[in-house]
Amino acid sequence: MKERVIELMNEKKYTKVREEVIELNAIDIAELLEELDTNNALILFRMLPKDVSAEVFANLSNENQKYIINAITDKEIQFIMDELFFDDMIDFLEEMPASVVKKIIKNTKEDERRLINQFLNYPANSAGSLMTIEYVGLKKEMTVKQAMEYIKRIGIDKETIYTCYVMDVNRKLEGIVSLRKLVVSDDDKTIEEIMDTGVIYVNTHDDQEEIAHVFKKYNFIALPVVDKEERLIGIITIDDIVDVIEEENTEDFHKMAAMEPSEEEYLETSVITLARKRIVWLMALMISAIFTGSIISKFESVLQSVVALAAFMPMLMGTGGNAGAQSATLIIRGMALDEIELSDIFKVIWKELRVSSLVGVLLSLVNFIRLYFFQHVDIRIAMVVCSTLIVVVILAKIVGGTLPIIAKTLKLDPAIMASPMITTIVDAVSLFVYFTMASRILGIA
Amino acid sequence: MKERVIELMNEKKYTKVREEVIELNAIDIAELLEELDTNNALILFRMLPKDVSAEVFANLSNENQKYIINAITDKEIQFIMDELFFDDMIDFLEEMPASVVKKIIKNTKEDERRLINQFLNYPANSAGSLMTIEYVGLKKEMTVKQAMEYIKRIGIDKETIYTCYVMDVNRKLEGIVSLRKLVVSDDDKTIEEIMDTGVIYVNTHDDQEEIAHVFKKYNFIALPVVDKEERLIGIITIDDIVDVIEEENTEDFHKMAAMEPSEEEYLETSVITLARKRIVWLMALMISAIFTGSIISKFESVLQSVVALAAFMPMLMGTGGNAGAQSATLIIRGMALDEIELSDIFKVIWKELRVSSLVGVLLSLVNFIRLYFFQHVDIRIAMVVCSTLIVVVILAKIVGGTLPIIAKTLKLDPAIMASPMITTIVDAVSLFVYFTMASRILGIA
Repeated sequence: MKERVIELMNEKKYTKVREEVIELNAIDIAELLEELDTNNALILFRMLPKDVSAEVFANLSNENQKYIINAITDKEIQFIMDELFFDDMIDFLEEMPASVVKKIIKNTKEDERRLINQFLNYPANSAGSLMTIEYVGLKKEMTVKQAMEYIKRIGIDKETIYTCYVMDVNRKLEGIVSLRKLVVSDDDKTIEEIMDTGVIYVNTHDDQEEIAHVFKKYNFIALPVVDKEERLIGIITIDDIVDVIEEENTEDFHKMAAMEPSEEEYLETSVITLARKRIVWLMALMISAIFTGSIISKFESVLQSVVALAAFMPMLMGTGGNAGAQSATLIIRGMALDEIELSDIFKVIWKELRVSSLVGVLLSLVNFIRLYFFQHVDIRIAMVVCSTLIVVVILAKIVGGTLPIIAKTLKLDPAIMASPMITTIVDAVSLFVYFTMASRILGIA
Repeated sequence: MKERVIELMNEKKYTKVREEVIELNAIDIAELLEELDTNNALILFRMLPKDVSAEVFANLSNENQKYIINAITDKEIQFIMDELFFDDMIDFLEEMPASVVKKIIKNTKEDERRLINQFLNYPANSAGSLMTIEYVGLKKEMTVKQAMEYIKRIGIDKETIYTCYVMDVNRKLEGIVSLRKLVVSDDDKTIEEIMDTGVIYVNTHDDQEEIAHVFKKYNFIALPVVDKEERLIGIITIDDIVDVIEEENTEDFHKMAAMEPSEEEYLETSVITLARKRIVWLMALMISAIFTGSIISKFESVLQSVVALAAFMPMLMGTGGNAGAQSATLIIRGMALDEIELSDIFKVIWKELRVSSLVGVLLSLVNFIRLYFFQHVDIRIAMVVCSTLIVVVILAKIVGGTLPIIAKTLKLDPAIMASPMITTIVDAVSLFVYFTMASRILGIA
């Protein structure tokens, strides 16, 4: 498909191209445009039917959006802006350089310009920055028939018509009514009779993570956003929330691997940015690991007498780190999904204590058999290694299970208490336990 | 709120309770029931209006569902089953013990029984196991007016009426038409004139992860599911996909922390299950770490001559592990979001090479200043440590960046090539590089 269109474009068989492309979903057309060189992309874009072009535009990369805006006429820009849903326009403007924004704002009407400025000022990741103003507003005195006629007239320009919002004269939200309810109700009923009044809504400044929770909990497809006076300002739709959920997950994945989170795609992020996002944590953890090294220095005499002890250090540190990371991940994820609360900390400790004892003893047993019977290591050293292993696994799992909860209590993001941080802490603890055990059991001062 | 209801229940002021509860969203009522003791929960459940009770039931925990089913009459069961959406019923039946399933199937009609059995047989996590049969089917000869009247009659029992499906006499999917299109179109147009024919659909056996991708890409709120003959079997709605997305993310989080993924909530999982899901990987990684230890044994003479070298091992292994985990996480996440393809492997290597050189040199520099100027470590040892650090960071990032891609090429889940696996590999590499450098630069045989 793509190849054929590119070939046809190069042969300048434009009518043929148009026929092929027009059958596609707007999102597939956008994907196709991304593959073409900018010149052909522009030609193809201008061939699109007007109502399709705005939707295609909304799904292009920022690069291509910028290129197209700079290449088309003011009138064409105005048309696209009129057709774009308001939230898509705001998303687009947020990513454009000032010169492009100026060019576009020049082409909008006074009241729209005020709205745009208001929306561009909502904090990033807030309800305000996610919402759209294209919702259907109804009055409670309307009959079902009047409402349906009204929707028939204006529905085409609304982001969703499947939930309609009932407001009083001051735009205060009084209720909602689904299009389903309208369709199945008798024509002469009033909106007041059929509307739902226990409306769940969010505030313009609420964080997108909380909003995603509301959507997930209630299975909504749209959610109203109100200001401090409970006036309806806009709505958020499920398609944007799906993106938010993935964004929040990506953020957690990045944080849990000791990086500053990034919203940009990996392949499109510059080397400098990638390096900057990684080095802070690497540096911090490296310096902490130097402290771990000082534990070894402290026990240098023990190591000097039994150099063989060094060979078990990677296994002890590694197993401890992995055991801790498992617990930390379960707890961080559980908290992200609202399954684990701060007050569950003692339940977590008790559970991790039992799991870790079981796991620790098993690992230790396998290790002992291997060391003593197969590798013929001195029994006292095998005992030092295996008893350290049990202690390390238990400590690691308690540390891994509780630190994320403690972080949350301190209003920090639990995700930073993931594998890298836990591993660094557990490394130090493991070595301290190991050498203390060794000096006791082997009788070295 | 909760406290008040519990108090009122205990005082047996049931009319008052009913008044309070009836104002709530069904999901909040379900949450409230979970807090009550089973006896009160049952009383409250039976007080609910019939149409609310099925929705509340669908949102209860399996424990409470089982309790209620065993406590209520066959007639009440039949009523709930009639009201439940088909996909909710299947979800519920999948979790119930055979005795409960039997009790329910006894109360369903012959043809419904056949359908239930068919749905229970779709593979877990397939389109078939997610879909529902309550969609609106239209014929292309209908006019808009006829279609709207039809929807008015049957719409109340459908999971969604916002996308309607047009089929021929053999149930082959011919097109879709959104309720929005129906509402804004003229009454006497035919469905054929306004329907969309380039329908995107999935197959009953497609995996839920792919289906989630389709929803995310096209911003759908529903998607048709067809069988091998392209006959429409059911539809999947966005609310179920939101759950799938979180499930798939949880699976990745678990795998990336070296655990077998679990769908159960942490606090509800038994100690034995938790231990079982963790020990396999811990054991495997522990045994690999023993191999790392053997590298140390091999270089025991080097370590014996300069025991001070041991103090830098945790820092080198830790930094290498963290550096590799950062890259692995970015790549695994990028592949999960379809941003990175197998063919990008060379781009990834080139990018990681540059990022890691930058990061490695910087870390090494800071380290050198610290070691040589502040800790007054022998300059040759400082050089060994710092040049190892550069090499380790570069190797770690290349390994971390490429192994997930290689895993995918081999049809393995890239998520297993995360921190624990990368750390174990990098540990061995780091130590090998370290001691080789040491024996060269310090001139120890």
